[in-house]
Amino acid sequence: MVVLRLLFKNQKMKIESVDFFYVSMPEVLDIGDGSQDALLVRIRAGGLEGWGECEASPLTSISSYYTPMSHSACKPVRYSVEGKQLNGVDDIYKISESVHENSLDLLQADHTLSGIDIALWDLLGKKSDAPVYELLGYKKVFPKLPYASQLFGDTPEETFQKAVKTRNAGYIAVKFGWGPFGKTSVEDDIAQLKAAREGIGADIYLMIDAGTVWKEDVDDAQKRLNALQDVNVFWLEEPFFNGALNAYKKLAGASAVKLAGGEGCNNFMQAQAMINYSGIQFIQIDAGRIGGITVAKRVADLARQKNITYVNHTFTSHLALSASLQPYAGIEKDFICEYPVELKSLAQEIGKEKILPDSDGKIYVPQKPGLGISVNTDALKKYLVDVEISVKNKVIYQTPEL
Amino acid sequence: MVVLRLLFKNQKMKIESVDFFYVSMPEVLDIGDGSQDALLVRIRAGGLEGWGECEASPLTSISSYYTPMSHSACKPVRYSVEGKQLNGVDDIYKISESVHENSLDLLQADHTLSGIDIALWDLLGKKSDAPVYELLGYKKVFPKLPYASQLFGDTPEETFQKAVKTRNAGYIAVKFGWGPFGKTSVEDDIAQLKAAREGIGADIYLMIDAGTVWKEDVDDAQKRLNALQDVNVFWLEEPFFNGALNAYKKLAGASAVKLAGGEGCNNFMQAQAMINYSGIQFIQIDAGRIGGITVAKRVADLARQKNITYVNHTFTSHLALSASLQPYAGIEKDFICEYPVELKSLAQEIGKEKILPDSDGKIYVPQKPGLGISVNTDALKKYLVDVEISVKNKVIYQTPEL
Repeated sequence: MVVLRLLFKNQKMKIESVDFFYVSMPEVLDIGDGSQDALLVRIRAGGLEGWGECEASPLTSISSYYTPMSHSACKPVRYSVEGKQLNGVDDIYKISESVHENSLDLLQADHTLSGIDIALWDLLGKKSDAPVYELLGYKKVFPKLPYASQLFGDTPEETFQKAVKTRNAGYIAVKFGWGPFGKTSVEDDIAQLKAAREGIGADIYLMIDAGTVWKEDVDDAQKRLNALQDVNVFWLEEPFFNGALNAYKKLAGASAVKLAGGEGCNNFMQAQAMINYSGIQFIQIDAGRIGGITVAKRVADLARQKNITYVNHTFTSHLALSASLQPYAGIEKDFICEYPVELKSLAQEIGKEKILPDSDGKIYVPQKPGLGISVNTDALKKYLVDVEISVKNKVIYQTPEL
Repeated sequence: MVVLRLLFKNQKMKIESVDFFYVSMPEVLDIGDGSQDALLVRIRAGGLEGWGECEASPLTSISSYYTPMSHSACKPVRYSVEGKQLNGVDDIYKISESVHENSLDLLQADHTLSGIDIALWDLLGKKSDAPVYELLGYKKVFPKLPYASQLFGDTPEETFQKAVKTRNAGYIAVKFGWGPFGKTSVEDDIAQLKAAREGIGADIYLMIDAGTVWKEDVDDAQKRLNALQDVNVFWLEEPFFNGALNAYKKLAGASAVKLAGGEGCNNFMQAQAMINYSGIQFIQIDAGRIGGITVAKRVADLARQKNITYVNHTFTSHLALSASLQPYAGIEKDFICEYPVELKSLAQEIGKEKILPDSDGKIYVPQKPGLGISVNTDALKKYLVDVEISVKNKVIYQTPEL
């Protein structure tokens, strides 16, 4: 085994194949639950394979990979990936840069790149016999406090029950989000907030995720600030659309309620703008959207420098969770992490291994090579969505064998 | 005819059909010429039809319109469009808002919405028997000075010849961009800049478009500032990736060379951030990317308030040109406009009418209802790209009849 690994380690690799798998629950509900489908990416090189996941519209991302070129700065994502060298981290940076340059005007490209970049880090980790965080330069990793991330109940009673259940499960940090919150009256929201706090008790971190419900409207958000303070929220997340710097800034200055945001960022510069100009104290990055681990790590470094707390955004599988933990695994001060607790069976079955809280209620990034999560292809077959795309009567994509 | 128009005017309309047409030159070259393909949108309602154009990857945008839902905030664009009321401008605002909300996590949605929004304004203009700018609230329109927008030649000699030709054609403002500029040595760039200036003469506006060649690298850009000043450029455009606020700000402070940028913005907030934090003096908006005329008009209003010059970005058809002119047609101080002069035959043939410079070398936004450009469907048939997309063995998109 050691001999075999050394063999891989010194072998020159080229990217041989990139395959996309659109998997979905049989029925997708009109709720804010991002675990109902997934787009998995499998990359093969030198007898190894890496896996990644795009937190993105599967069909749209697949199209962005295979589409014909529109012009020099609107090339399909595949142009920058297939056949490229993959021998060290610099090769991943090169591919990332190439996608940004050659698919500059292809909006979806960042979401598609995300899963590819994650798969490349996984693959390189396997080749190097090292977890991804080591390749990122972290010598040591620190445990994270997982917050149980879930949707609000449809009623305060339902939220209360969820809160009690989560407390009983041992979580010491809980987030409620989306659902009816912010959509009706202030009184309704107050009832939801009280139910959440009463259910978890006074001693547990409570975060609230508004899911961009107030768009760019500061007044609507401001009406909830007192209630949020009354239940002692640790943060208010995404009151506004990502990038609504003025609205964020105004709300941040209006009370002691700390703001979190950034999950919608699809490149480094958007995250940088949020850090510099929005007044948020927590920058939340989804490696499956921002361009992968490569870009997420840049944001984690900037956040450290600016004394902003970096937090992962993850509402899907443990493969995605591992990918989103890597960029800040070695930063001790960034102590908290999003931990989805309401995953649909699809998202639960993607990874064979699970990232579970230890007896202290903390989680660790996997120690195995790459992302440390192997994909359960057998289990996924039942979720596989058949897709075929043809252009000029030529099939350019067909769901491959899992 | 008057009776018929009145009939339409008072008739309640619902959006009956939305059709996408991917058209392309037979061969697409690896050059920065965005006129090599196009995605046209035809919307029908109440016996009328409106047309729009997405400045976007056609296949990817089509997929974002028809894709199955991923979750409540990642719905296909069609969810917010089909069957909706279209009786006044508020209905267009509603559709725009609905796409932003329901397709929040579908990155490509903004590009797709752009063509739809443009088609809706065209349709509503026809229904109201008014040009779009009137529906936007402009009582009076002002002429714009078109700058002949073109690519650098591969060599300084070629650029010189292009410059001479453009001057002889009567243009008094010229832009060169992309091609080899910024990709090799400072000396090579100086030769290109001198060739451009010598070819057009001293008395003509010269703009230079770096096409994001320096990514986020201020040093690389800074090395060209003296040369840009020496040839008296009116602006330097897109030295960096869209949204690279820090890099823009630093370069803007480094010399008297004025900066332009913003064509990559795909929503209002990104343009707002560029206006507030990048130090640019010209904000360039492509209505075919930013979410259509609706969003572009918001940016034009903000630019006016912030004393930043608004300029259209258009490197495609005259249908797209008309759409991109509408948002600032009534703002006198924003006197200049991008005017593509190297369109491929496809982009030339999209519109039956042309927007041509008058004897003073100025252009006017069309005075006819809607966008004032009718689409030449017969001419486009030869460019039509056959696409078929199926999901779960069901065809969800097939190129419709033109």
